[in-house]
Amino acid sequence: MKITLEQIAELLKKHSKFVVTAHVNPDGDALGSVLALSNYLISIGKNVTCLIDDDIPSNFSFLNNIKMITSPVENKINADLLIVLDSSDLERIGRVRQLTSAPVLNIDHHISNNEFADYLYLDSNVAATGEIIFQLFKLMDAQITVAIAEYLYTAIATDSGFFKYSNTSESTMKIAAELIHYGVKPNLISEELEKKPLSSIRALPKVLETLELFANNRIACISITQNILELCDSTEGFIDFPRVIDGVELAIMIKYVDDSTCRISMRSKTIDVSKIATSFGGGGHKKAAGCTIHQSLLDSKKTIVDAASRLMGVLNND
Amino acid sequence: MKITLEQIAELLKKHSKFVVTAHVNPDGDALGSVLALSNYLISIGKNVTCLIDDDIPSNFSFLNNIKMITSPVENKINADLLIVLDSSDLERIGRVRQLTSAPVLNIDHHISNNEFADYLYLDSNVAATGEIIFQLFKLMDAQITVAIAEYLYTAIATDSGFFKYSNTSESTMKIAAELIHYGVKPNLISEELEKKPLSSIRALPKVLETLELFANNRIACISITQNILELCDSTEGFIDFPRVIDGVELAIMIKYVDDSTCRISMRSKTIDVSKIATSFGGGGHKKAAGCTIHQSLLDSKKTIVDAASRLMGVLNND
Repeated sequence: MKITLEQIAELLKKHSKFVVTAHVNPDGDALGSVLALSNYLISIGKNVTCLIDDDIPSNFSFLNNIKMITSPVENKINADLLIVLDSSDLERIGRVRQLTSAPVLNIDHHISNNEFADYLYLDSNVAATGEIIFQLFKLMDAQITVAIAEYLYTAIATDSGFFKYSNTSESTMKIAAELIHYGVKPNLISEELEKKPLSSIRALPKVLETLELFANNRIACISITQNILELCDSTEGFIDFPRVIDGVELAIMIKYVDDSTCRISMRSKTIDVSKIATSFGGGGHKKAAGCTIHQSLLDSKKTIVDAASRLMGVLNND
Repeated sequence: MKITLEQIAELLKKHSKFVVTAHVNPDGDALGSVLALSNYLISIGKNVTCLIDDDIPSNFSFLNNIKMITSPVENKINADLLIVLDSSDLERIGRVRQLTSAPVLNIDHHISNNEFADYLYLDSNVAATGEIIFQLFKLMDAQITVAIAEYLYTAIATDSGFFKYSNTSESTMKIAAELIHYGVKPNLISEELEKKPLSSIRALPKVLETLELFANNRIACISITQNILELCDSTEGFIDFPRVIDGVELAIMIKYVDDSTCRISMRSKTIDVSKIATSFGGGGHKKAAGCTIHQSLLDSKKTIVDAASRLMGVLNND
């Protein structure tokens, strides 16, 4: 059932025991949204359990109280509502879905959302789920502390590519302005998020060596092999190298998971990559999407480049 | 003489013939501010000559009417006012200063401004000179066309490091929101500005090979040698590699100009690098500054690393 922000506010007021979660492989929007909503709910006297079924990338360790997000354990949790943030599919929350039989409230901005929830608030026009949480807070007259402002700024800045992506709207910028008013220091957030260990910078030449162009140079692809993964802590930002090449419409990063599994990330300037991602069981947005392919790195690359070439209407002869 | 925005408006209304210029080695703020102010003045019936004594980097060729900015030729220009934007020093406008004997209006945001102008409006708290031009336009009730909005967005986005630097304020974000309202598409601006030829991406491993750390890894330095310059069109963004390394407080890029000249760029998280830049005849901001050193690349590197180490209170034994 699709509900309004007002109805979300009602649900939050009515109930007292919440599990708040977001997708595996958590990004700034997932973490920022979970932390913002959870801390607000706690501040108004609610009982909240924050769970994400994955490790938290170290770049987010600067966020206040980040350790309140834990991994799910076997014990069932008795809750009134399972709040699933920034997730288009119930599969995306991993083992958290087995821990409670509470009704599900899903707040999301992915166009690929498959409407799995009992209560759904979906706005695919906003840059981040964090924008929706901000709107909800305004509606509920929530007190926006510096920490909450930092969570929401992190959510919005990361999902809008630091205000560079096409999802960056007038409203995105106004919210960012307001969050700065509440105490966010944009440079401190960006410094933390961009921080890379020296080893990652040293690994970059190896990443750049894997750069390949396809479809008359309209598709550029980098491959994060098992060897490269051993050298670097995070692959954050690597997709920007193929993305910024003059003439490239689609950037692809193929990341080794195991010998028969790869994680695919896509950034597009033209075609709707959420269609490709969804066809492989993934999801995302029109211009930024991802999926997992159960093939070797080389085969995954061929599979995804072929699918993209077809959608672009070009034959890939490379 | 320091003047107010209201007094600038008076000067612009009173006079009819303007030369508008900005610093050599022009960046987004210099170009965007010159184009915005010039196009507005033309729209209210003024006679404007736009001059910059340097080549315009190709990434800015997407800006509407960019070709109205030309290089100065020998002929003297009869003007009522020489408007010098985004320049802290008269030397920074190159040969333009010899072309007219008109009084000088300087609008700037560099803390290192040496107050050379007849009329000065200096606000070192704003992220970009473009922010001041926007304030002036509001005061003058100027019509902000899409092109003017794009000029100002380019000015502000580039000088704030796409809203990542410490100069990004609530006001910066509000102005950006308003410019999006006037028709700016943030993704189209960022795509143009970030665009790199494939050759630049292919040259990156060679840039990364030059990475060196000093002062207990608090200073990171890259060197753009003559060989590297032959491979890449622009060095835009290269300083981000040393800048994002965990623990690095000062990133330095040393760029070959000729065998006895180097151009130095600095980005700091702690020390005031405008002091170092000024001591070598350059200038800038507390956290982003630059200068030219008349030494070989190797000697320049030693000179600047030593100066920075002293300011940081560390002995550089590397």
